[in-house]
Amino acid sequence: MANEKKLVEKITARDVDFAKWYTDVVREAKLCDYSSVKGCLNYLPNGYALWENIKNDLDKRFKDVDVSNVYLPVLIPESLLQKEKDHIEGFAPEVAWVTHGGLEELEERCCIRPTSETLFCDYWQKIVKSYRDLPLVWNQWNSVLRWEKTTRPFLRSREFLWQEGHTLHATEEEARNRCEQMFKVYIDFVTEDLAIPLICGKKTESEKFAGAEDTYTIEAMMHDGKALQSGTSHFFGHSFADAFGIKYLDKENNLHSAYETSWGMSTRIIGALIMVHGDDSGLVLPPRIAPVQIMVIPIAQHKEGVLDKALEITNLLKENNVRVKIDDSEKSPGYKFSEQEMLGIPIRIEIGPKDIEQGQAVIVRRDTSEKIIVKLEELTTKVNEVLELIQKNMYAKAKKFLDEHIYTAKSLDEFKQIAEEKTGFVKASWCGSKDCEEKIKTDTNGFGSRCILENDEHVDNCVCCGKKGKHMVMWGKSY
Amino acid sequence: MANEKKLVEKITARDVDFAKWYTDVVREAKLCDYSSVKGCLNYLPNGYALWENIKNDLDKRFKDVDVSNVYLPVLIPESLLQKEKDHIEGFAPEVAWVTHGGLEELEERCCIRPTSETLFCDYWQKIVKSYRDLPLVWNQWNSVLRWEKTTRPFLRSREFLWQEGHTLHATEEEARNRCEQMFKVYIDFVTEDLAIPLICGKKTESEKFAGAEDTYTIEAMMHDGKALQSGTSHFFGHSFADAFGIKYLDKENNLHSAYETSWGMSTRIIGALIMVHGDDSGLVLPPRIAPVQIMVIPIAQHKEGVLDKALEITNLLKENNVRVKIDDSEKSPGYKFSEQEMLGIPIRIEIGPKDIEQGQAVIVRRDTSEKIIVKLEELTTKVNEVLELIQKNMYAKAKKFLDEHIYTAKSLDEFKQIAEEKTGFVKASWCGSKDCEEKIKTDTNGFGSRCILENDEHVDNCVCCGKKGKHMVMWGKSY
Repeated sequence: MANEKKLVEKITARDVDFAKWYTDVVREAKLCDYSSVKGCLNYLPNGYALWENIKNDLDKRFKDVDVSNVYLPVLIPESLLQKEKDHIEGFAPEVAWVTHGGLEELEERCCIRPTSETLFCDYWQKIVKSYRDLPLVWNQWNSVLRWEKTTRPFLRSREFLWQEGHTLHATEEEARNRCEQMFKVYIDFVTEDLAIPLICGKKTESEKFAGAEDTYTIEAMMHDGKALQSGTSHFFGHSFADAFGIKYLDKENNLHSAYETSWGMSTRIIGALIMVHGDDSGLVLPPRIAPVQIMVIPIAQHKEGVLDKALEITNLLKENNVRVKIDDSEKSPGYKFSEQEMLGIPIRIEIGPKDIEQGQAVIVRRDTSEKIIVKLEELTTKVNEVLELIQKNMYAKAKKFLDEHIYTAKSLDEFKQIAEEKTGFVKASWCGSKDCEEKIKTDTNGFGSRCILENDEHVDNCVCCGKKGKHMVMWGKSY
Repeated sequence: MANEKKLVEKITARDVDFAKWYTDVVREAKLCDYSSVKGCLNYLPNGYALWENIKNDLDKRFKDVDVSNVYLPVLIPESLLQKEKDHIEGFAPEVAWVTHGGLEELEERCCIRPTSETLFCDYWQKIVKSYRDLPLVWNQWNSVLRWEKTTRPFLRSREFLWQEGHTLHATEEEARNRCEQMFKVYIDFVTEDLAIPLICGKKTESEKFAGAEDTYTIEAMMHDGKALQSGTSHFFGHSFADAFGIKYLDKENNLHSAYETSWGMSTRIIGALIMVHGDDSGLVLPPRIAPVQIMVIPIAQHKEGVLDKALEITNLLKENNVRVKIDDSEKSPGYKFSEQEMLGIPIRIEIGPKDIEQGQAVIVRRDTSEKIIVKLEELTTKVNEVLELIQKNMYAKAKKFLDEHIYTAKSLDEFKQIAEEKTGFVKASWCGSKDCEEKIKTDTNGFGSRCILENDEHVDNCVCCGKKGKHMVMWGKSY
């Protein structure tokens, strides 16, 4: 039996040291690993398969709203990066510079893209002439590089994978609608496919993206009560269009400046998946996104007929479009269970000689450990039911956790007390001033504004200065 | 009618200036465009959609033979690149160097990956301990950068998109089998999905990949008779494993060096698609890979019922998993035909008031211009038949062209005469010496060895020196 616990014993308990639990799970589930390139990750088969599924599901949602995929260069000439003032201020300190090509020094150095607004705008300036050329709704799946000092798997690394969507529009209304539409796509994707409940809204002035007029954000609560910003959608107004001189002629031949948006989601979201759903046995993956949904594990597989039956079940499920694998290796069943649990595979099916005698198999749910005995002829139907149940239960469980960890503060003292005693988010009214925002963060040991809650209940006086409140804001410590 | 010819008039005829025809088609079909980053391309929606389909089809074939996708960093530290001697000699002159991260100069400069053998081997050296860790069969879809002097859309650019597979094995036999298996996957993919016939075999010593023991290549013949190397699979033997110290313990606890392979296909293949199948009206895309397989074009669409019927047909086909679009814009039908032809969409369906009266539609094949009148109730069946026919016909047509443009030379004089008078490939025996290979290339104004033809008919004396021949070789000018 000692052997069976082997994998679990390699990970720290969540409540003992959450940060260590996280890195232990990433390592034992073989999701990613540090490379010899400082601060950069190797995305390993298990981690990349997760990203592939995320990418496929999200890309389908993009195509449903008429997004076209493109690919623009990995390099940005320095003069382009500098065209939009706020943008260069935000990114210059953290880009990597290419100074030599082959054996020659470059006339103008180029950075590796930290994000590609400048490249899209530079190209659009060349091709957009009239209203007929608009809107442009483009997206690319690529990697970007930001020279971070401290790094953590998926959460912060110098290079990371993401998608960046960029759009150009004739009118402000159309651009704002697109920005909000893509924000909505992220919300639907994360809640429906990743089973992660969200707090959503606009960022405050000081938390906006460099160069944006408005930034919409989706924020998820990790098991330690901290927030992870999981996707953003930006409305730029004319800022980039003016910096790059993107103008179009309307039907009456009048020249106008265009409106731009951009929106992105990255491999960070894998960090959210791990930290929202994982437990002391390892990963717990939502069925819709799990690379393997079911692991079939034969019991006493050397006994006659067991392996054949297990294989028969596996093939049957495969034919019914379930992502299923069989573990027929020489390891003990207990060790196999432990591996399947570490990888977060939503269901395992156990089948041994006694089950076969009785024409049944045992379904074990990863999310609840519940065992369900099912007749073999009902297996496919039952499995699909249970996958659906797991998906729903995972969302419900995470939603309950989120709701239970949101507190309300009416005064700064109350806020400070919550910050000391609890983990989670705090809802509190705010006057809109940068000073109050900063003071709150300092006095509460790190509760920054996560987002402005719109259409929310009554806004009280500012929790900090006591003056008339402007917004209800969700505050939290963040990754 | 003048309007109708508009797009076609923008492209040069193939036989007038093939190079110009090529760039005209790339531009008018909006596949890609030069960016402000010297030598780098913007892959536009039409071009990238083509790459997405290529990627999806090829990736399915990879997964069928147990390839796992991963992602390794975009940067390679200089010391890693230098570990394999032949490799650094091959690539050092054409890499871009990152010397600064943020505001600081790097202790060790890094290049942007020109290919990733060194990164895979560096990581494998750390994780491979025993035979149980082998084989490793990994692949990544990424971009690479090589500082080319002259560039052409898809054919040669500083940055290009590709996949690079890397595998590690315990035995030479297993590694050689994998190398040949992936070579076979490329052949099947290109012939079956892209309808491009191939000449396949090993590269000669001087044409091999830097560091490889054997390089297998697939070579396609363009309409101008030149060869395009379209995919390669390399067997490295121990070269990288030894340079990186990758060793494993066998069952008896003896230490061995491992065997490595790598294999890649890039966006160059889009160049092959264009130059093998395209004609004076633009692109011609094989149905299996075409982003849009059918364009429905209503005739006299302002007349009552026409648009409704055209839309009904479009939706019907969509439900039957055909990739179909409708062009209900205000342009003239003739102009729409011209656009659909330029984009290489395999089928257009014309439907007007008279057709509706008679319960029919007109199918027009892009490959032959043939018009087929079909009853509406048979449309779905017929369309699928015709798509299948087009796919087969495109291969047959290209195969006929290839066969008709392969010549045999028994002497250098004969070879020189063919080279002067014909376009295409030349089959000729070769003694195996580098001198003869070079002399042939010089004397024939550029006919290099494309590949060694294995299991071929009788090998004569060397076409160059007259000594005993060692191989039958396919020679050709190349892109």
